[in-house]
Amino acid sequence: MTTPDPFAVDPWGVVEHGFDLAGQARAESVFALSNGHIGLRGNLDEGEPHGLPGTYLNGVFELRPLPYAESGYGFPESGQSVINVTNGKLIRLLVDDEPFDLRYGEVRGHQRSLDFREGLLRRSAEWTSPAGRTVRVTSQRMVSLTQRAVAAVEYTVEAVDGPVRIVVQSELVANEQLPLGDGDPRAAAVLEAPLAAELRHAAGSKAVLVHRTRFSGLRVAAGIDHVIEGPGRVDTTAESSEDQARITATTVLKAGERLRLVKFIAYGWSATRSLPAVRDQVEAALTAARYTGWDGLVDEQKEYLGRFWSDSDIEIEGDVELQQAVRFALFHVLQAGARSEERAIPAKGLTGPGYDGHSFWDTETFVLPVLTYCLPAAVNQALRWRHTTLPMARDRAAQLGLAGAVFPWRTIRGEECSGYWPAGTAAFHIGADIAAAVVRYIRATGDLEFERAYGLELLVETARMWRSLGHHDAHGRFRIEGVTGPDEYSAVADNNVFTNLMAQSNLRSAAESATRHQFEAAALGVDTEEAAAWRDAADKMFIPYDEKLGVHPQADGFTDHQLWDFEGTPPEKYPLLLHYPYFDLYRKQVVKQADLVLAMQVRGDAFTQEQKVRNFNYYERLTVRDSSLSACTQAVIAAEVGQLDLAYDYTAEAALMDLRDLGGNTRDGLHMASLAGACIALVAGFGGLRDHDEHLSFRPRLPSGLQRLAFSMAVREHLLRIDITHATTTYTLLRGGVLPILHEGESLRVEKGRPVVRPTQTPQTPAERAVQPPGREPARRHGQAGVQVGTVDHLPAE
Amino acid sequence: MTTPDPFAVDPWGVVEHGFDLAGQARAESVFALSNGHIGLRGNLDEGEPHGLPGTYLNGVFELRPLPYAESGYGFPESGQSVINVTNGKLIRLLVDDEPFDLRYGEVRGHQRSLDFREGLLRRSAEWTSPAGRTVRVTSQRMVSLTQRAVAAVEYTVEAVDGPVRIVVQSELVANEQLPLGDGDPRAAAVLEAPLAAELRHAAGSKAVLVHRTRFSGLRVAAGIDHVIEGPGRVDTTAESSEDQARITATTVLKAGERLRLVKFIAYGWSATRSLPAVRDQVEAALTAARYTGWDGLVDEQKEYLGRFWSDSDIEIEGDVELQQAVRFALFHVLQAGARSEERAIPAKGLTGPGYDGHSFWDTETFVLPVLTYCLPAAVNQALRWRHTTLPMARDRAAQLGLAGAVFPWRTIRGEECSGYWPAGTAAFHIGADIAAAVVRYIRATGDLEFERAYGLELLVETARMWRSLGHHDAHGRFRIEGVTGPDEYSAVADNNVFTNLMAQSNLRSAAESATRHQFEAAALGVDTEEAAAWRDAADKMFIPYDEKLGVHPQADGFTDHQLWDFEGTPPEKYPLLLHYPYFDLYRKQVVKQADLVLAMQVRGDAFTQEQKVRNFNYYERLTVRDSSLSACTQAVIAAEVGQLDLAYDYTAEAALMDLRDLGGNTRDGLHMASLAGACIALVAGFGGLRDHDEHLSFRPRLPSGLQRLAFSMAVREHLLRIDITHATTTYTLLRGGVLPILHEGESLRVEKGRPVVRPTQTPQTPAERAVQPPGREPARRHGQAGVQVGTVDHLPAE
Repeated sequence: MTTPDPFAVDPWGVVEHGFDLAGQARAESVFALSNGHIGLRGNLDEGEPHGLPGTYLNGVFELRPLPYAESGYGFPESGQSVINVTNGKLIRLLVDDEPFDLRYGEVRGHQRSLDFREGLLRRSAEWTSPAGRTVRVTSQRMVSLTQRAVAAVEYTVEAVDGPVRIVVQSELVANEQLPLGDGDPRAAAVLEAPLAAELRHAAGSKAVLVHRTRFSGLRVAAGIDHVIEGPGRVDTTAESSEDQARITATTVLKAGERLRLVKFIAYGWSATRSLPAVRDQVEAALTAARYTGWDGLVDEQKEYLGRFWSDSDIEIEGDVELQQAVRFALFHVLQAGARSEERAIPAKGLTGPGYDGHSFWDTETFVLPVLTYCLPAAVNQALRWRHTTLPMARDRAAQLGLAGAVFPWRTIRGEECSGYWPAGTAAFHIGADIAAAVVRYIRATGDLEFERAYGLELLVETARMWRSLGHHDAHGRFRIEGVTGPDEYSAVADNNVFTNLMAQSNLRSAAESATRHQFEAAALGVDTEEAAAWRDAADKMFIPYDEKLGVHPQADGFTDHQLWDFEGTPPEKYPLLLHYPYFDLYRKQVVKQADLVLAMQVRGDAFTQEQKVRNFNYYERLTVRDSSLSACTQAVIAAEVGQLDLAYDYTAEAALMDLRDLGGNTRDGLHMASLAGACIALVAGFGGLRDHDEHLSFRPRLPSGLQRLAFSMAVREHLLRIDITHATTTYTLLRGGVLPILHEGESLRVEKGRPVVRPTQTPQTPAERAVQPPGREPARRHGQAGVQVGTVDHLPAE
Repeated sequence: MTTPDPFAVDPWGVVEHGFDLAGQARAESVFALSNGHIGLRGNLDEGEPHGLPGTYLNGVFELRPLPYAESGYGFPESGQSVINVTNGKLIRLLVDDEPFDLRYGEVRGHQRSLDFREGLLRRSAEWTSPAGRTVRVTSQRMVSLTQRAVAAVEYTVEAVDGPVRIVVQSELVANEQLPLGDGDPRAAAVLEAPLAAELRHAAGSKAVLVHRTRFSGLRVAAGIDHVIEGPGRVDTTAESSEDQARITATTVLKAGERLRLVKFIAYGWSATRSLPAVRDQVEAALTAARYTGWDGLVDEQKEYLGRFWSDSDIEIEGDVELQQAVRFALFHVLQAGARSEERAIPAKGLTGPGYDGHSFWDTETFVLPVLTYCLPAAVNQALRWRHTTLPMARDRAAQLGLAGAVFPWRTIRGEECSGYWPAGTAAFHIGADIAAAVVRYIRATGDLEFERAYGLELLVETARMWRSLGHHDAHGRFRIEGVTGPDEYSAVADNNVFTNLMAQSNLRSAAESATRHQFEAAALGVDTEEAAAWRDAADKMFIPYDEKLGVHPQADGFTDHQLWDFEGTPPEKYPLLLHYPYFDLYRKQVVKQADLVLAMQVRGDAFTQEQKVRNFNYYERLTVRDSSLSACTQAVIAAEVGQLDLAYDYTAEAALMDLRDLGGNTRDGLHMASLAGACIALVAGFGGLRDHDEHLSFRPRLPSGLQRLAFSMAVREHLLRIDITHATTTYTLLRGGVLPILHEGESLRVEKGRPVVRPTQTPQTPAERAVQPPGREPARRHGQAGVQVGTVDHLPAE
């Protein structure tokens, strides 16, 4: 599924040379800009040609009916789909009446680049029109990380020969026509013309359009304002119609002259506020942006990112492609979470319409563990969003006959939108995943105010769910039956080990939190009997184990199941779910994604080292990695059991998922969990970080392909730097007082100005490499062998 | 859900006195006439008021898309729904310009009756129009059991006072408007105007309409012809439009005079034949019917039914209501199967649109076991229909990655139409159910020609499916995993005992049949190695057993599951599937319908008597009977384990399902499996018939409420009569040579003219009555207590 690689390797950015029409959609995802509130796909300024035009606002969706050939009680009737909102980034250019369009005329040069330290998408093009006129177009686009409602574009057109008549149309366009979907259920449902016009206004250099979604009833306002500079006379006009507003600048340029246009774009939306309120909000944001000015916005952006990289960079020596990929990953994870602010972080961030714009367990399990140690405020916001959805989750629990709260498998606003319950509703582990994220955040930040106001209730309501979902059997064991774990090639099984272990933590954490906050717990109706019942269920939690094979079955009976016929499965039959029925996948030993292996990461305390080795090797034979939520976890445990080269291979796969389009669907948006997972693979895999106990614990070890790995972690008031080479690991405290940590089980106290150095343990004899299903081995990554690394400027020449 | 009882008790028929508008739809099902090819609901002659107008042709359906909120590989994309075809039974009457309509004017008398020995639906009404004119209307309607394409109505109107102007419009109407569905997924999807007009013709007393379904491309022709007799001048006109043809007779009647109209109706349909061919077929059928004449058709019908009752009646003494119900059951089972002729027998027969007109395992498991011993030719036809669908079943198997044939869970033509795979595709036992019906038919008839031409291939292809679906585990046990058994409150479990035992029989029968027909088997590619593999899988079939509880779990792990909270489930929450999610039903111990208990009936040889007792009592506590496919089976095993009064209660429930509308959905059509099941409950329950070995075996015993039970069975050339009282059981051979049978395990040889009499064994101390979930106990039926029995003529007074 890999398409030819259009992006050069650069440790601090992504550069595209030339223009590949076929790869547009993929490049639009890679070059997407977002602050977690606004998302702009990397569409060309002039709108066409495009792969998939996309402008998203976090939380703006349309409802659509969920149909069933045979319905059943509790099947959700209504789904939520992210919509492409009013496009504010559109700037069309006419050169002597001919539209600037890369499909016509002659493209003499085209380059786009994204620098992770700047947060700007830069573009430069030199183009000769069919009539023979040549212009140079440059643009810089940003979505502000400091001004949440604002995006901006600096657009310059220069006449190479002249005089030439130049018309620039800077637009707002609602209800853009979208390409038809291809029927893959993983791609978003296309919603045609979801926006109904409410208000339009254009005057001077400014225009506003307000629309409303037809069924979800959300009001969306988009506004633009401009600063236009030209060498001579520049005429501007302002026009608007229902779905379009346009500011037009017209001038004549002589050779070497330039027309420069700065476009400020602002968005606002609300489910409740009035038309004037939403309009005013957008106009205020425009005014503030204009006041800051283009250079001011650029400076703010650089400063914000400077702080981020200074505190959160992951440095790698020995593999510049991996270095690029992990910074790409961190940058996009930052973009997804920075300003989501009581909204969900979708599986694709705001980079594309994949998975209908839904959030899954991906957020709490992969994205938040990364943000916790670099942008904890974003985690606070993301979990507060979950908290706002508690009324819906309680309703869902009641509908399902359960106590507490049942969080949705997939959603935008909070209601369950999963139309296939064995892989949706039955994946109850989402509740424990949220609880684990709550506990991690509180432990990492010490934010007791959050715990009191939000965390406790999330822990209590999920614990109540587990207590009512499970039951004690005749032997006193607490069993959780008929649920689906992470592996989507199994469903509705009994005592999924991952689920039971996560539920165990959830129950214990809720009891502990209720003890810490007795008044608040009492207000939630928790008494000591209820907390005791949680502790008892946790203590008696049944964890199946196959004595015969000496491994944990993923769920009851799993190891008795027939083995998938891997030898008889040709490469073109992957991903299996598109070629084999669920009934066959579910009943056989075949694993889509780490499940028991993920349990060994997040609940490493529940397994002996020998069990980890045996389990890992057992499940490696069964795991086909048809999900992007797998390689990173396999990397972490591979590293733990000493298979460092294998861990390296998996790390690279997770990191390159989108830059190399390994899944063939980067066009629909980036895989946030895989990107975050690449960071996890490095930090928890090679860094050996575990955070399931009170103190952070490290067991650093490097694969032969890397010379050095260094990363930082924000923990409460501390900033800890970990610098790993094959010889030594150095723990340096950059901020804060004494921080107790564990290194290879040894308690260390790290103080500012007194780095602690320990030898890095390298296995004497490397562990034997586990075997994967034939054809499903990760690509080998021995150093740089086989990878072509180009040397490029990370800033394109203008 | 029980509605007030409109039908009087009569041992040989159903009589309705008066007219109950609210109960119309139910009465239309009860009074439905069919020969298995044509089905006419008991709509009033004048069409309105109606509950649900219905005219069905076996095999005529329309395609409709099956939608999925989230689709998956192998989900069927297209469904099949029975359609209401051209209505030929419509006869409107105008009395001095006022339409005869029971909702207006005054109904002075109204009676309908169906006599099981005649096969005629008789009606008489005396009605005074709003203008004060009184007429007497009588009609008799039939669907011919001897002329497959023909139905007929004799319609008479008599002036009570006069003179009165009478207009009779005898019509054909296509695309009748249907009432909207109520959203219950069990009711049929309403398909609006499914018929596109192709030809219309009306002249003299005759009219024909030909239509074609839009998507399934089936051509349907309907024709009518008339004999009209009146005392004076009768003018007739013939008209037609696209969706209507009308023959109108106009006359003036003096008081006491009558207009009589005989309407012959013929239907034909084809997926392949030309318009003229289908039209000619209908006109030929009309000509033949007219040649036979009304009296001739009535005589043929009586003769046919006389033979049927003479050979197949089930006689009961001591419970006239049950006597009526079981004859009602036999009559409708006969109607469903008599002339289906290489078409499916739907779950509702041709009595209503319920379940979209689909056939399920009901046919082979409940209906065919009854027809095998009274109308074996119908079984031959029904199984030949399955044989015709083998290409589709082979395609489905290939799609699912299996060998052999996978028959659909629900279908009209043969393609899988189940839109929810855990309760559809996963119910692989359908294949073994078909195989068991094949084996029973061959054993009962000795029809080796059928076996050679059809049966062998059905056995081979289903055996191949089982061999590829199951696998040998490390202990050499043959396991069948991830399948759904009969109980629809469990799904996708491992080693369902019913499924595994049925598969075992299937595999063995295929090997035996291949041995009997070596040349034909070789032509199907069966070699001795393959047959050996079937025998081996059968011998090693894994049957789970819970040693701790001393019962068979329905499937692996079932007895470890949490018990359903029966005490906490109020009556209004039944049927559970409409009030609880599948996830919760599936993971708990709650049983919708006999599953393990059915295994004990059809594979009684695989259980010890003690196991039967323990299993039955265990599963009685769990079985809520939310399916009509349960009471009959519970009756059979209750009788076997000596709980005769309980067996009697269940028998009555099965038998009265439709006459008393116990499920509240008789309006959508009759429950053929429950009706057939009532016969099974009597014959296999109180008669103790088992037919899973070479010779028929009986263990007769009667509940205290019955004085006598007698029934006949056609076995090869024999007709055996079994007559059971509390004292003795008498085996009489009415036809054929010596027949070896077993009575209480004793081998008997029954010869013509030499009845064998044996004492009927009655348990000394009645077994303790099993306990059912609270509120789900069957209604007690101690003799006739509490049942109101009216005495009525079975023929209505004209």
